Amino acid sequence: MVHAPARPPAGAPPVRINLYSDTQTRPTAAMKEAMMRAEVGDEQHGDDPTVHALCDRMAALMGKEAAIYLPSGTMCNVVAILTHCGKGDEVVAHETSHILFSEGGAHAAFTGVQIMPLKGAGGMFTADEVRANIRPKTRYNPPQRLLEVEQTANIGGGKVWPLKQLNDVAAVAHEQGWSTHMDGARLMNACVAAGVAPKDMVASYDSVWLDFTKGLGAPLGAVLCGSSEFIGQAWRWKQRLGGSMRQGGICAAACLYALDHHVDRLAEDHANAKALARGLRQIPGVAVEEPETNLVFFDVKGAGCDVPTLQKRLAMKGVSVSGLGGRVRACTHLDVTAPMIEEAVALIREALAA
Amino acid sequence: MVHAPARPPAGAPPVRINLYSDTQTRPTAAMKEAMMRAEVGDEQHGDDPTVHALCDRMAALMGKEAAIYLPSGTMCNVVAILTHCGKGDEVVAHETSHILFSEGGAHAAFTGVQIMPLKGAGGMFTADEVRANIRPKTRYNPPQRLLEVEQTANIGGGKVWPLKQLNDVAAVAHEQGWSTHMDGARLMNACVAAGVAPKDMVASYDSVWLDFTKGLGAPLGAVLCGSSEFIGQAWRWKQRLGGSMRQGGICAAACLYALDHHVDRLAEDHANAKALARGLRQIPGVAVEEPETNLVFFDVKGAGCDVPTLQKRLAMKGVSVSGLGGRVRACTHLDVTAPMIEEAVALIREALAA
Amino acid sequence: MVHAPARPPAGAPPVRINLYSDTQTRPTAAMKEAMMRAEVGDEQHGDDPTVHALCDRMAALMGKEAAIYLPSGTMCNVVAILTHCGKGDEVVAHETSHILFSEGGAHAAFTGVQIMPLKGAGGMFTADEVRANIRPKTRYNPPQRLLEVEQTANIGGGKVWPLKQLNDVAAVAHEQGWSTHMDGARLMNACVAAGVAPKDMVASYDSVWLDFTKGLGAPLGAVLCGSSEFIGQAWRWKQRLGGSMRQGGICAAACLYALDHHVDRLAEDHANAKALARGLRQIPGVAVEEPETNLVFFDVKGAGCDVPTLQKRLAMKGVSVSGLGGRVRACTHLDVTAPMIEEAVALIREALAA
Amino acid sequence: MVHAPARPPAGAPPVRINLYSDTQTRPTAAMKEAMMRAEVGDEQHGDDPTVHALCDRMAALMGKEAAIYLPSGTMCNVVAILTHCGKGDEVVAHETSHILFSEGGAHAAFTGVQIMPLKGAGGMFTADEVRANIRPKTRYNPPQRLLEVEQTANIGGGKVWPLKQLNDVAAVAHEQGWSTHMDGARLMNACVAAGVAPKDMVASYDSVWLDFTKGLGAPLGAVLCGSSEFIGQAWRWKQRLGGSMRQGGICAAACLYALDHHVDRLAEDHANAKALARGLRQIPGVAVEEPETNLVFFDVKGAGCDVPTLQKRLAMKGVSVSGLGGRVRACTHLDVTAPMIEEAVALIREALAA
Repeated sequence: MVHAPARPPAGAPPVRINLYSDTQTRPTAAMKEAMMRAEVGDEQHGDDPTVHALCDRMAALMGKEAAIYLPSGTMCNVVAILTHCGKGDEVVAHETSHILFSEGGAHAAFTGVQIMPLKGAGGMFTADEVRANIRPKTRYNPPQRLLEVEQTANIGGGKVWPLKQLNDVAAVAHEQGWSTHMDGARLMNACVAAGVAPKDMVASYDSVWLDFTKGLGAPLGAVLCGSSEFIGQAWRWKQRLGGSMRQGGICAAACLYALDHHVDRLAEDHANAKALARGLRQIPGVAVEEPETNLVFFDVKGAGCDVPTLQKRLAMKGVSVSGLGGRVRACTHLDVTAPMIEEAVALIREALAA
Repeated sequence: MVHAPARPPAGAPPVRINLYSDTQTRPTAAMKEAMMRAEVGDEQHGDDPTVHALCDRMAALMGKEAAIYLPSGTMCNVVAILTHCGKGDEVVAHETSHILFSEGGAHAAFTGVQIMPLKGAGGMFTADEVRANIRPKTRYNPPQRLLEVEQTANIGGGKVWPLKQLNDVAAVAHEQGWSTHMDGARLMNACVAAGVAPKDMVASYDSVWLDFTKGLGAPLGAVLCGSSEFIGQAWRWKQRLGGSMRQGGICAAACLYALDHHVDRLAEDHANAKALARGLRQIPGVAVEEPETNLVFFDVKGAGCDVPTLQKRLAMKGVSVSGLGGRVRACTHLDVTAPMIEEAVALIREALAA
Repeated sequence: MVHAPARPPAGAPPVRINLYSDTQTRPTAAMKEAMMRAEVGDEQHGDDPTVHALCDRMAALMGKEAAIYLPSGTMCNVVAILTHCGKGDEVVAHETSHILFSEGGAHAAFTGVQIMPLKGAGGMFTADEVRANIRPKTRYNPPQRLLEVEQTANIGGGKVWPLKQLNDVAAVAHEQGWSTHMDGARLMNACVAAGVAPKDMVASYDSVWLDFTKGLGAPLGAVLCGSSEFIGQAWRWKQRLGGSMRQGGICAAACLYALDHHVDRLAEDHANAKALARGLRQIPGVAVEEPETNLVFFDVKGAGCDVPTLQKRLAMKGVSVSGLGGRVRACTHLDVTAPMIEEAVALIREALAA
Repeated sequence: MVHAPARPPAGAPPVRINLYSDTQTRPTAAMKEAMMRAEVGDEQHGDDPTVHALCDRMAALMGKEAAIYLPSGTMCNVVAILTHCGKGDEVVAHETSHILFSEGGAHAAFTGVQIMPLKGAGGMFTADEVRANIRPKTRYNPPQRLLEVEQTANIGGGKVWPLKQLNDVAAVAHEQGWSTHMDGARLMNACVAAGVAPKDMVASYDSVWLDFTKGLGAPLGAVLCGSSEFIGQAWRWKQRLGGSMRQGGICAAACLYALDHHVDRLAEDHANAKALARGLRQIPGVAVEEPETNLVFFDVKGAGCDVPTLQKRLAMKGVSVSGLGGRVRACTHLDVTAPMIEEAVALIREALAA
């Protein structure tokens, strides 16, 4: 039986301060206006001018030849792995990566790849770790075909891979004849935090995608970029998976709007995350990891509490946070303001004192 | 190499009369207003009230326990077959069915099913044809698990399966312990044409989906209906395929609008199709199948022409039609009016005379 | 529930005249002696000299660069299709082919290919039939990658594809950029019947396999031949499927023995088949297809009988035949002599008269 | 490109002392006589009496309802996982397990399962380690369906899982509703070393297989045991994979012979392994793990040597050993005698001194 995500406890008020996830941002009035004005066509037939504009813009931003619009980030990973790999191949990725932990076994199910889990702090691994996991090329081993990284690393704590490390691990992959793929769900957070241009950040990666439904605040969609040949093949998988849309330009318009208006402001989310971390550190017994982007992970065991208990108490106060691997995750985004952060710290203090 | 759909010839004017496909309708101003007003949430977390409203309404309309919103009709078929079948199973379907001809081999690729192609006029088959294709239950044969029908039958000429025939073929399937699935891409056209309520039309089918991007005129999305257990499992496949959305309610609002305003008016499309058929029949050498819904198939070989030539000539006059199996297909829909039909007949006559 | 093959009725004597299948031949004493004398090694490690000798000999016989020993003919088809195709590709084959009818849906299950069923008498199709089924190269169609033929065509009635027709259909495939594969389960029967050398018979086919457990009388194994690159990749699939063996040379020795002693004698089986057909034609109401090789198909409806009834009556007389598509199939082979054929005709006459 | 296993260096004499693998035993004269005398039939049709006898005997030995004969141990794992799991499911197994390291990615390729790698010394894990890796039952996680153990653990050093630990980890699995599967490639070594009867050793496992081509010395085949329903379904996968045989009884007779004559003598292999370990420990710089069964792992870095160098030097002296994860593996078996062990120690000492 498949369970839906945890529901708020009975009697909980509506969520006022949503630190649960940046996926829960609601489109702004201005974004919706841009959607309404969008010129549209039949996206599946290659006739939607707004989708074309989005793909052209993303390809330029990422320094790749071409791009494809897909309904979700998960489908970007599925399509990319289907395009890079055949069945029985192996993908090398971090042991906490989204493709291993959060996509329901889709890659084994649909592509038939095995994922080799690498170790490393903060959801990142080193070139040495990659080298130590190169398999001999025998009939007994699956052929290794793809190295995958997540920028930023979600379960890793929202950490930003340093550019040199990204390039170093990609270099090992390319030496081995593997392709490289970046899960850039929160790539713009990394670029803003590190002050690195997207096309420099992804230069060593054969494919990369950006999610528009996280910090960028659009309601739907992600864009996968790569070579023209790669994107041509990706279209076939998009069609087969049912990811082709009809008048997709309405949603693509929200993504274009987000590129214009919601990228630079990610710096505010990062400042809010740092403020939250500072505030939480004042609470006795709370251990906080220093955030690099918009994800704040903290441990409340020292305060005599556990994650589900804290979640329930906060829910009764209109505050929503998530739990991940025994830690609390608080996520800042478009719908979270600096005063809300201050209030959230106070409410968390209260909840832990209860 | 994957080719994109045929492009209009150089120098062609914009399309004025779009008989290419009912997938190319553009959302109306009123539909867009409904989208903007939609209350939204995180669809993937089960928190989007507009998506819930759409699913509840569809389940009631189809007389099923539950429903799930998906980005496309192709994904409805992929999810349904993944849920009904395991790898190595066999699906029994018409030899011209969409799952065999228009989904790029997705079902073999993702589910691992073999499709047994049945024969029959108009994209339909009889209970006897099903019986004649029941395989012995031996180790050499794939287990047959699912019977699939398409209502209306697209390549079959937009034909409406008679209710009794739908029930008869389903009865054979159920006797055999198979499930039944209806590809209802244009189900509402069938219901309006036959004067049969949707829930009666689909009563013998364990799962059924309706596309909102064809005659119903919404920009994106389809809804798959079935038992609660079936939909619970379908959610897992939706997640894996990357079909989960974020603020999906914006698009779902267009579907709700379409249920309120674009169902009864399908009768106009059918009247336009009949008018088109009447007009075409007056052109020497043109053989026209009598339309039952919004698809008009005609043959121009008797007029000394072939499909690509006619398409090119019409494109230069601002008219778009499609070709399917050596015949021309003209499709009526929301954006096609009675005067356009008259003009289209005249332009086709001219084009054939050229 | 998976049923085992039909069992003989209670009280039936042991089978004396086995016309059920040439797969049921028992190794002769001389063949077993050859097996015992075989020099062996670790086949999986490429160290079995007898397996090497068999593969070298088969590659030379078929005029291909390399060969691989596999446990069965079904595995030859599975490995070949895995090597030629990727998931979502399409294989073009006759609608009565073994890969569609007798391998349990394995190709959809493991490779993810769709099989397009071609029509044609005797299990064979023409170059025109292939041309009529070439799909447009669009995103909606699965890419066609492989043409498959069965020589001789089993369900087709043991018919021998004429060499020119084999070459013609292969030429169309190669024009399209497809590969070609021959299921040569009974290839030697075809070569002996047609008087064509194996390497000429298979010259247009990129891969071909021969089964040693049918008319050739070995207990286990089949050999797949092709280019060195193809066989190199096939080895990976053999390993993954669990088709690698240890001291496989014991069984390979039986295959080498069969090549030396059991090929020319297939002509006797063909003569016996013709004698059987002649005899059956004398029985009122029996309609017999003229055999070209060792399979005799006949219809007993004109004699007021059906296949299962005849099978049961014959079983009580120690005669075993199979049923296939409403007809009786009688198969001649190593363990069937000319006097047995005479006796079988008499017993079938009696059984039909009962 | 797929590489074949490492070949001996040019000029190397034939292998006299084969410590490479127990898979390289050659059938004895007595075993071959038993093979020749075997009564056979069509195994694929369920008509081979010797295969039936082997399956019945194995089912009784393992205390299971039924058994199936397959060409290899790899196919036993593939068939078992196909039968226990569906695509997108997860198998929980040790990070050094054969299914992850030595089957070429077959399980992702064919079944579509993801394998969660557990940690633990000696190729074994604890009930606590299993509990720590139970996933929440959400849409984001693959459903966990199967726990797999390897008895003995090959890469783990030939270690024997203690019976209690086997039962403890299986109990956690069953609490979770998972099935349990034992890769018993060298199960008889474990039973002999631990003095535990096979049916007690495997009592907590829903399926288990034994390889006959390792210490038991047969040329081909393995037997998978489980419930009648499980084996009924396994037959379908055997057929699809091409694992059905024809006169398989010839090979099955070798397995029956091995059960009669080659089980108790495994104690000699274990004694030889201990003797080898004792001898190696006398060589300066060699670090030896105490063997529990027939696998001796030792490290030669302390002697200033590496594995490939030692392998080459020993090959020139007619001794063959394997390398696994930076260590040397020497394997005792049927073709290795006590005097050979003494000689091998001397030759290894010489080779390291070179």
